[in-house]
Amino acid sequence: MSNSALELTPVETVACCSPLTKEPLSADASERIAPLLKALADPVRLRLMSLVASHADGEACVCDLNDAFELSQPTISHHLKVLHEVGLLDRSKRGVWVYYRVKAEALTDLALLLGGVAR
Amino acid sequence: MSNSALELTPVETVACCSPLTKEPLSADASERIAPLLKALADPVRLRLMSLVASHADGEACVCDLNDAFELSQPTISHHLKVLHEVGLLDRSKRGVWVYYRVKAEALTDLALLLGGVAR
Repeated sequence: MSNSALELTPVETVACCSPLTKEPLSADASERIAPLLKALADPVRLRLMSLVASHADGEACVCDLNDAFELSQPTISHHLKVLHEVGLLDRSKRGVWVYYRVKAEALTDLALLLGGVAR
Repeated sequence: MSNSALELTPVETVACCSPLTKEPLSADASERIAPLLKALADPVRLRLMSLVASHADGEACVCDLNDAFELSQPTISHHLKVLHEVGLLDRSKRGVWVYYRVKAEALTDLALLLGGVAR
């Protein structure tokens, strides 16, 4: 996972920084934050985040998400993996399926970076 | 400007939607929101947003921003144009320079979409 190479969890990556509109962002911080936004900047992945969050108990496997897209299961699995790798989704394996859960704190930290709204 | 083709301002584009974690995002909404996140998902553009917001009176021209980057003025102007086209920066021409200003409401709406924090 690329983030472990930085020895920072993805959440720490974002929580490091003041809101975008409050003070200049450092070059280092911008390099760490851009990949999270890039992972989100895709219509399928945006929908996957919302579908996982809205699913029963806040978690879902690719088997639960298939029907919402006209895409193959491997393609959906790939998008889920991208979101997991940047730290926007947690995952755990149970039986034959991998279950995903939104890391709400990562989204909240991104929201704070963009909006500067209080926690 | 691509957004005018949709007959929606960029801010309306995002403000249309419930927070990502509250209910499934529609395919249409995800297609409209992804370009804003994609515009932000670049280290130079993230820094430009923060530098413009932090500049005197909350506005800056490319002449004010040059020194922060080891990039040519046309390259920085290109990044500013990308941010303007998706509706994250306002601009106005005065004399020979174009001055940019962060559209705080667009960032706040994106923040609400991601974090679901109250206004």
